[in-house]
Amino acid sequence: MTTLSPDILSTLEGQGIELPSWAFGNSGTRFRVFTTPGTPRDPYEKIADAAQVNAFTKLAPSVALHIPWDKVDDYSDLRRHAEDLGVTLGTINSNTFQDEDYKFGALTHHDDRIRQKAIDHHFECIDIMHATGSRDLKIWLAEGSNYPGQGDMRARQDRLQDSLQQIYARLGDEQRLVLEYKFFEPAFYHTDVPDWGTSYAQVAALGDKAMVCLDTGHHAPGTNIEFIVMQLLRLGKLGSFDFNSRFYADDDLIVGAADPFQLFRIIFEVVRGGGLNNPDVAFMLDQCHNIEDKIPGQIRSVLNVQEMTARALLVDRDALAAAQQANDVLAANAVFMDAFYTDVRPALASWREERGLAADPMAAYAASGYQSKIAADRVGGTQAGWGA
Amino acid sequence: MTTLSPDILSTLEGQGIELPSWAFGNSGTRFRVFTTPGTPRDPYEKIADAAQVNAFTKLAPSVALHIPWDKVDDYSDLRRHAEDLGVTLGTINSNTFQDEDYKFGALTHHDDRIRQKAIDHHFECIDIMHATGSRDLKIWLAEGSNYPGQGDMRARQDRLQDSLQQIYARLGDEQRLVLEYKFFEPAFYHTDVPDWGTSYAQVAALGDKAMVCLDTGHHAPGTNIEFIVMQLLRLGKLGSFDFNSRFYADDDLIVGAADPFQLFRIIFEVVRGGGLNNPDVAFMLDQCHNIEDKIPGQIRSVLNVQEMTARALLVDRDALAAAQQANDVLAANAVFMDAFYTDVRPALASWREERGLAADPMAAYAASGYQSKIAADRVGGTQAGWGA
Amino acid sequence: MTTLSPDILSTLEGQGIELPSWAFGNSGTRFRVFTTPGTPRDPYEKIADAAQVNAFTKLAPSVALHIPWDKVDDYSDLRRHAEDLGVTLGTINSNTFQDEDYKFGALTHHDDRIRQKAIDHHFECIDIMHATGSRDLKIWLAEGSNYPGQGDMRARQDRLQDSLQQIYARLGDEQRLVLEYKFFEPAFYHTDVPDWGTSYAQVAALGDKAMVCLDTGHHAPGTNIEFIVMQLLRLGKLGSFDFNSRFYADDDLIVGAADPFQLFRIIFEVVRGGGLNNPDVAFMLDQCHNIEDKIPGQIRSVLNVQEMTARALLVDRDALAAAQQANDVLAANAVFMDAFYTDVRPALASWREERGLAADPMAAYAASGYQSKIAADRVGGTQAGWGA
Amino acid sequence: MTTLSPDILSTLEGQGIELPSWAFGNSGTRFRVFTTPGTPRDPYEKIADAAQVNAFTKLAPSVALHIPWDKVDDYSDLRRHAEDLGVTLGTINSNTFQDEDYKFGALTHHDDRIRQKAIDHHFECIDIMHATGSRDLKIWLAEGSNYPGQGDMRARQDRLQDSLQQIYARLGDEQRLVLEYKFFEPAFYHTDVPDWGTSYAQVAALGDKAMVCLDTGHHAPGTNIEFIVMQLLRLGKLGSFDFNSRFYADDDLIVGAADPFQLFRIIFEVVRGGGLNNPDVAFMLDQCHNIEDKIPGQIRSVLNVQEMTARALLVDRDALAAAQQANDVLAANAVFMDAFYTDVRPALASWREERGLAADPMAAYAASGYQSKIAADRVGGTQAGWGA
Repeated sequence: MTTLSPDILSTLEGQGIELPSWAFGNSGTRFRVFTTPGTPRDPYEKIADAAQVNAFTKLAPSVALHIPWDKVDDYSDLRRHAEDLGVTLGTINSNTFQDEDYKFGALTHHDDRIRQKAIDHHFECIDIMHATGSRDLKIWLAEGSNYPGQGDMRARQDRLQDSLQQIYARLGDEQRLVLEYKFFEPAFYHTDVPDWGTSYAQVAALGDKAMVCLDTGHHAPGTNIEFIVMQLLRLGKLGSFDFNSRFYADDDLIVGAADPFQLFRIIFEVVRGGGLNNPDVAFMLDQCHNIEDKIPGQIRSVLNVQEMTARALLVDRDALAAAQQANDVLAANAVFMDAFYTDVRPALASWREERGLAADPMAAYAASGYQSKIAADRVGGTQAGWGA
Repeated sequence: MTTLSPDILSTLEGQGIELPSWAFGNSGTRFRVFTTPGTPRDPYEKIADAAQVNAFTKLAPSVALHIPWDKVDDYSDLRRHAEDLGVTLGTINSNTFQDEDYKFGALTHHDDRIRQKAIDHHFECIDIMHATGSRDLKIWLAEGSNYPGQGDMRARQDRLQDSLQQIYARLGDEQRLVLEYKFFEPAFYHTDVPDWGTSYAQVAALGDKAMVCLDTGHHAPGTNIEFIVMQLLRLGKLGSFDFNSRFYADDDLIVGAADPFQLFRIIFEVVRGGGLNNPDVAFMLDQCHNIEDKIPGQIRSVLNVQEMTARALLVDRDALAAAQQANDVLAANAVFMDAFYTDVRPALASWREERGLAADPMAAYAASGYQSKIAADRVGGTQAGWGA
Repeated sequence: MTTLSPDILSTLEGQGIELPSWAFGNSGTRFRVFTTPGTPRDPYEKIADAAQVNAFTKLAPSVALHIPWDKVDDYSDLRRHAEDLGVTLGTINSNTFQDEDYKFGALTHHDDRIRQKAIDHHFECIDIMHATGSRDLKIWLAEGSNYPGQGDMRARQDRLQDSLQQIYARLGDEQRLVLEYKFFEPAFYHTDVPDWGTSYAQVAALGDKAMVCLDTGHHAPGTNIEFIVMQLLRLGKLGSFDFNSRFYADDDLIVGAADPFQLFRIIFEVVRGGGLNNPDVAFMLDQCHNIEDKIPGQIRSVLNVQEMTARALLVDRDALAAAQQANDVLAANAVFMDAFYTDVRPALASWREERGLAADPMAAYAASGYQSKIAADRVGGTQAGWGA
Repeated sequence: MTTLSPDILSTLEGQGIELPSWAFGNSGTRFRVFTTPGTPRDPYEKIADAAQVNAFTKLAPSVALHIPWDKVDDYSDLRRHAEDLGVTLGTINSNTFQDEDYKFGALTHHDDRIRQKAIDHHFECIDIMHATGSRDLKIWLAEGSNYPGQGDMRARQDRLQDSLQQIYARLGDEQRLVLEYKFFEPAFYHTDVPDWGTSYAQVAALGDKAMVCLDTGHHAPGTNIEFIVMQLLRLGKLGSFDFNSRFYADDDLIVGAADPFQLFRIIFEVVRGGGLNNPDVAFMLDQCHNIEDKIPGQIRSVLNVQEMTARALLVDRDALAAAQQANDVLAANAVFMDAFYTDVRPALASWREERGLAADPMAAYAASGYQSKIAADRVGGTQAGWGA
């Protein structure tokens, strides 16, 4: 069995992956949102489910909230609820894509009233961050246009910068703004922050507390994502990851499901660039469990990240550097692939057992009865989804 | 002003483009369905709106229905309603993607009960077709899987053929089955009918009354769609078009909006292959007006198809053939582009005026007061969308 | 260490992967063909290099030839040369893309003289096949057009069918024609056989001895290739593979290098569909070692195919079927991924040692001195490339 | 006939599009470089051909050179030759992709000797610029790697910055450095400057005389190129265009041939952002006439740019802004499309005739006899291609 060195184990010890509260609610496509028994009805239940993921893996110490989906009357109470369950509240995600006012834009809108409303929403998010103890305000800009000519892309870009400056100015000293980019959807002609270059240019104009968020599903087909990881780390602007995977568009599948080797390459660049266990670079999931069970889907996800991190740490970087220096293409690639093809799963099972965890978290969760319990308990009410 | 020859005008005279009833209801993305005032609440109102499109253009003589969204108690009554408004009921579209039973498949499902339910749904559609006088049963197979290993793709393909055979056997003598293919969505790993080859192989095994439906938004990036049009016409299996356009995925934008030159090339191949005004090849729209007004959106669409048809008919095919024979690449391309760049709009405006239509149907509709009337009248009830 | 069952080992015993002679010559991009010391100067030297790959792996018993690049005066002599080195001559690949006459087409050309010349070239290839003992005539149709309007796609398709019929009629009883498809390149607007559907329609019209060749690098971005493998096996028309890999277009990288999980999924479908060790389905490589060493590049490639085949054979198909039947998405995917993540390399090293091979063929080849020997010996003459 | 306003005509009067000397030489794919009679054998003949394009269009006043392909003994003499023919020498393009030393990199190479050689090559280019009177040094970075692990992407990026700084420091006061980006090819895994973000980050670190070059064929599928144009103009870093078009990859087809509407959108953003007739933004072509005639191919190209510029200038920007302000999606799009669909060709033919040019430059060139003259004269010698 492949053993993992003390250094690698120590590094893995420090890994934490933030879970999105919305992954525990229902999600789907424009065609249909299928439901699952036991789906949470409120933020408290979502956090309870997220805590299960952490309980079985010790990999998921925090939960990201989405406002307004996770609005509660008393955030201090929600925070205590989380802490009682062994997790903390993490990133606050704003939402400017579900109000009728935002049909044609929010932070980029030409109508000052609507734009101010969107800015105010972010001020509210910052207030919530103070109550939840969250550091990061994540802005995914769903804005854009569907038809050429519909909007003035340049003016929208300028208004975006102005809006972001106002939001940035409201941040506390320890708080950050992370700006996500996305290739397309829900807008189908232009998106106001479609690529890392735009996100970078926008946040660079704000200041040190503004960073880029890289969602692994938000790129054009064929994009070399690990290159972007490298570049953003080099520029000091990689603030966070939204991990997921995709075969086609923004499929939001389980991280590592579609192209495990790509995930390996991405995490290797994180390691190489000093982004692992670096507080500046947050690891988060952003996935949709449209048809699979949600809690085990999240357990599978954090295990995938951990396993791939272990493989990335196994790369013999001295041997790699030597082969690179020698222009020995096949040898360098072989060093790289050797780590990828190494089966780290038994060693990680041991690692878990040494920490009092089940060797197989998926089986342990299935055997725990939690799923049938919530399916039985959570009857009535409205299952949480993207509208709540 | 460019004039259109009597031959071209006569050809255009015969053109009819079927409208989808659902284009008049609300639609959106997985993130949000925005609403518009005046949206129909039932199939009768959808047909009334569709009839407006025809009234202003004489290009849209029929309306496709979607079952169960357009279920009514009395299809004969709906048919009379349509005919009173000057349109007919066209293609019946089945739906096997919105019932909880169909979460993992319908016509391909391994569970015989569910598969039979899906087959029975198509039997019901055929019954409706007899009542509505519809010729075509269109099957869009939304089925597939999200994760490698989730399904047995081969067994699903075999079950699909069996299901289709049962449906095919139920068709009346004058009825047809058209099988649509789609690259991806709502399934994100594999789709059971992902490409024209699969649709072709499936319908070829059924018989002469089974044809392929080509939706212009259902291909991989970069696909040469007009080549597929050519090939399906050559193989005698092009049954119908779903026209729309896209920049990225299945964006369902107004036909011709994203790449007008592609639409030109597609229609040119239709002309070249004898598919224009050929009853075997149905022209339909399948679009989503997520943010734009719906009735004018449909008017714009049929005008786009008509204008592009006029341009395609303008290609000097003798000159084209001569340049092709001479291997004169630039000359052949020039003949082709000359037709595309010709402004046919004034001639078509005249054509409309000669038929008692407004020269500018968009302006005429806007001036008609219909939009404000339905906005005022259609208060209360539930606006139609993809669930109804 | 993971052990491989006797059944799996026995299956692996039967595996043979055909090498392309041209992989041992120089190749490159339109920008530059870089050279390597020791590159063969003629077909005899190419075969000698190919035999090295087989000597170290016992996985590569045959070599495909490309005509005219591999033309020799005496094919019987070349055959003896191969057999003396322990390999056989395999598929004959025709070439209709490098003669000035073929600038605008060959088997599709409107000029009868040129089309007959292209057909005659295939007759010559069939004659060579009799001399070399080859079964398969592989036709990659590089033809198409660069500009809309340049060619009559429909007429070209009809002429193609006519040409293929003439070639097909010349085949011996034991010979086959395999028709490759390719998304684009060298033509940039339309390609005459761009997709599996076209290849399938063309060969289905010929007869049982005509099959489709699937090159893994010849698809649109995002295409689910294993689905096509499944479909062609289902239709009885998968004649052969050209293995390689790509990140972008037809990159012709080492098989498994860009997306190992995709290779796993492809081979799993081959296994599931009965295509493994099935004489009807030929495994071939078609790669370009533009910057890496050629012989070790080929060794790496056949090892990649073998390793991935072992992983595909490890899939617990009973457990997979059970999870599929239960609609347990995560369990089914887990069964699938478990095989992929299993490290089969130590077991295959043992397998090799039991057969008298070196455990590590890459290292053994490097230590053999062959590379330095050919670098020293092959001085003068013209290194082989795509022109010879 | 659509008339063009005095303002538009005056704007068009100022338009100049630089031609690439290499467009007059042979080019092709990795499979074949086809030849054409009359192809230039040296830089003098290339410039003579380029001057023909200008003579018939008055749109192409300068010619870009490529070093070493266009090396001559006496650049002053070449400059006089150009000026005698009515054109000037423009951008100098460096080449670091055809020397055996550059197989694994040039400006990014880990070997100091090779990197210095590449830097020195750019110093030589700057010297040539002084002799030719050129302002811009264009660097297309063809460097990258084919296999994961092959290179250290981060270290290469840092070395690139260092190399560029050295080159930048050598620039004269009136000279600029423009850095081109490209999605892929000739490297197939990673490219050192793959996207506008990387080019922007690199040149922003250099200074005001460093700008980004946008080649319209160098993006991932689906990329909204006009958005990038907008953004680079907004950031003050759009230095130049390489115009061409593509259906698939970097096809290098005639500008406007593949997607004329995209070209319209791009030029509209240039107009909107103040980039038209702005000396900071150079318009250049970079195309390959693989199968079509070269001089008429270039004439067609500059006409395409001029025609599309005229259409972009026709957009009623007040009406557009009003529709945008009203959130009238269809009206805004209609204003946009109205300009695109307007046939400006007759007005431009008149414009030409008023300036003493032939109404139809393609026909006039064909009738001029130049093509048959060079076909007859240029016998012997070696036709120019990408190697010279």
